[in-house]
Amino acid sequence: MHRVVIIGGGFGGLQAAKMLSRSAAQVVLIDRRNFHLFQPLLYQVATGGLSPGDIASPLRSILRKQKDAAVLMGTAVDIDVDNRKVILENGELEYDSLIVATGCTHSYFGHPEWELSAPGLKTIEDATGIRRKILFAFEAAEREANPERRRALLTFVVVGAGPTGVELAGSLGSIANDTLKDDFRSIRPQEARILLLDAAPRVLPTYPPELSARAEKSLIALGVRPILNCTVVGVDDEGLDIENGSGPGRIASHTVLWAAGVAASELGGVLSKRTGALLDKAGRVIVESDLTIPGWPEIFVIGDLAHFEQDGKPLPGVAPVAMQQGRYVGKLITARLKGTRVPSFRYLNKGNLATIGRASAVADFGFVRFGGHFAWITWLLVHLMYLVGFQNRLVVFLKWAYEYLTFNRGARLITGENPPLPRIVPPGPGSCEVAYISRRSPASGETGKPAAVS
Amino acid sequence: MHRVVIIGGGFGGLQAAKMLSRSAAQVVLIDRRNFHLFQPLLYQVATGGLSPGDIASPLRSILRKQKDAAVLMGTAVDIDVDNRKVILENGELEYDSLIVATGCTHSYFGHPEWELSAPGLKTIEDATGIRRKILFAFEAAEREANPERRRALLTFVVVGAGPTGVELAGSLGSIANDTLKDDFRSIRPQEARILLLDAAPRVLPTYPPELSARAEKSLIALGVRPILNCTVVGVDDEGLDIENGSGPGRIASHTVLWAAGVAASELGGVLSKRTGALLDKAGRVIVESDLTIPGWPEIFVIGDLAHFEQDGKPLPGVAPVAMQQGRYVGKLITARLKGTRVPSFRYLNKGNLATIGRASAVADFGFVRFGGHFAWITWLLVHLMYLVGFQNRLVVFLKWAYEYLTFNRGARLITGENPPLPRIVPPGPGSCEVAYISRRSPASGETGKPAAVS
Repeated sequence: MHRVVIIGGGFGGLQAAKMLSRSAAQVVLIDRRNFHLFQPLLYQVATGGLSPGDIASPLRSILRKQKDAAVLMGTAVDIDVDNRKVILENGELEYDSLIVATGCTHSYFGHPEWELSAPGLKTIEDATGIRRKILFAFEAAEREANPERRRALLTFVVVGAGPTGVELAGSLGSIANDTLKDDFRSIRPQEARILLLDAAPRVLPTYPPELSARAEKSLIALGVRPILNCTVVGVDDEGLDIENGSGPGRIASHTVLWAAGVAASELGGVLSKRTGALLDKAGRVIVESDLTIPGWPEIFVIGDLAHFEQDGKPLPGVAPVAMQQGRYVGKLITARLKGTRVPSFRYLNKGNLATIGRASAVADFGFVRFGGHFAWITWLLVHLMYLVGFQNRLVVFLKWAYEYLTFNRGARLITGENPPLPRIVPPGPGSCEVAYISRRSPASGETGKPAAVS
Repeated sequence: MHRVVIIGGGFGGLQAAKMLSRSAAQVVLIDRRNFHLFQPLLYQVATGGLSPGDIASPLRSILRKQKDAAVLMGTAVDIDVDNRKVILENGELEYDSLIVATGCTHSYFGHPEWELSAPGLKTIEDATGIRRKILFAFEAAEREANPERRRALLTFVVVGAGPTGVELAGSLGSIANDTLKDDFRSIRPQEARILLLDAAPRVLPTYPPELSARAEKSLIALGVRPILNCTVVGVDDEGLDIENGSGPGRIASHTVLWAAGVAASELGGVLSKRTGALLDKAGRVIVESDLTIPGWPEIFVIGDLAHFEQDGKPLPGVAPVAMQQGRYVGKLITARLKGTRVPSFRYLNKGNLATIGRASAVADFGFVRFGGHFAWITWLLVHLMYLVGFQNRLVVFLKWAYEYLTFNRGARLITGENPPLPRIVPPGPGSCEVAYISRRSPASGETGKPAAVS
């Protein structure tokens, strides 16, 4: 029996596995995790709107009815292309056809050490870690009497103004201005500074300029300050060093989030070494018109890990591209086993969407571009539609409706290990008001005085 | 302004804080976490039915409207009772009245090292850790070719047959027999052995014998094997050593869960040292008829940390006791500030409920005892009613309805760090079938053959 091994259960890998259900092939889907993650909504987990379980679906559940498909939890570390074997961290697995769909991660532009201070948003653990960081900063600020440190705790920086960065910054704006509005006694969350940095001259640089302008306006309305034409030259636990038109600068911040750059997953490099495939600058594998590696017709690379040129430009690393490529490869292998052929892959762009916090989004459908409420509703519907699992759709829909009506975000849990909290000290000259130090009622007097925070 | 400091935002502390909303006092609620946790449903997070966010509610949200109440995230490490100060891990806080409500944890009967191999279920992290352990055991078994190791991976032991142990074991039965039924290709989850151990001669030993018998029958129907009159004498990562009527024995298991014993939180010992208060054997503080410490009328101990005798018996460590005590202390302090008095605390027992997996429960309302479907519906309604937050109620209700109809559990995520997975080796003589080693179709032939697992 012809065996197709798929590495990676993201959008591309999963579509390929499903498409092979009516083929004569056996499918083994390998993933490090036991679930498919709906990454476009990961930022909502990071900002306390959704729970991890809401945007994840067990891979075994998805493929349970497909009896010729097995799911294998494990990590592929190498590929023996001559003997057609995937080398796992513990064992190996033969294949007849191989589909590599292990995606991308963020790039720290040659400074991997920045990741410790400025986490990116790729996994569930990243999301709950970022959620902890954001919420913990408000908790620490509430205890902090020193005005300078309080200001640094209430400064949130998002690096990278692509769709993820814009969505993260917009959500941070909603949290500070709406969700947490009445939650604290010593600080006013509305005084938080939310900065969105990018080296490009506009937000959403891959979108048409008119939509960038629209998004920027929405962001500013949410309390986000875009800082453009600005390069990050250093990141540490206390803030970041930047370089912009007016020279070098420093931003003191305890919460720097990274949403910039693209670096292909390591299997790209492995494939290149084993097959001689060429990589682009981000480490993505340059593939043929049928998504195979030149000279290796049984090895396919799809999704964010693939560099596929169409009309002279590489396709963007978005879910629809990965899904169409997954379905294409599934069809191609099915056809091969039947002895028929399929034409080259071609991506059909159905449009791009990015949301900017509450009730605002931008949509680019090529022939028509729009923003505002209608774009937001479109965004909601498209994302609900693609979310895997009926229960997830219903729960996410409910949580969105609830958040829209009440501004509340239910999943605001600080879990895991935290750094030490600021010392509680009696207020001295020039210090901030801390409600539980004073024996006055926290509702009266100077409580929440914004003096040193603005 | 009179300041009431409450340590612990569980059922007792939260009710006390709410009850003080109409008093002349200022309230500071201290908790290590930023959320109130609905602990009675924690086992459903551990078994993949609910997400952490579904059973947790941010403390600040709950008290946001109560302007004279502040929430402080922090850990109380000591109490300076003479100067009326709570000593935090970083700073200190004065009080006029103090309510200590820091609860209990499990007791490992003098063997704290067992906790590493047999985690208890008290925090969100415990729950996601146990969820990982359970699901990972099935994943590892699917890869394991050695029949003995596979059998140990598919053996789940719950120590302690009180309500938590019964609920955990019942859920494990549902997972193995229903939820995961079609999910694997090499193992049959139905072959999993689920053992429920207790030193007592019956399950739910604090319930009337007729309900214990009923619960035992339901458990057996779910595939759980109760092993009673059985003492645990050793626990390690490979299994546990037991002692029962027929002498010592050994159970090989990779998943031992602990739901036995009660140990008061450390603040009980601290209070005893500082005030001379007496502790019971579990370390709980023995309190007066008004829940104060003898000789310290401004210090209250409530909930699981308090040992309160009523009709010659200590009250059980359940949520309704803690809630009624919290409300009582809130009322008492309010009355004191007005110069009036309240009678001694008296617990009004509205009944006990325990659920045993799908559509089965036992209820003991004193005057009436029953089990089965009706007890289960009662259990559902009572738990939904006490769950904090409208959104949580709706989402939990929906997830329960969905699970009831489809047997599916949506939150089956393996997150965090895992131990190494078993090596994938070609099957030898006497080894188990592993679907992705064989090039046969996993749907055909010997796949899922239970031979070595039963």
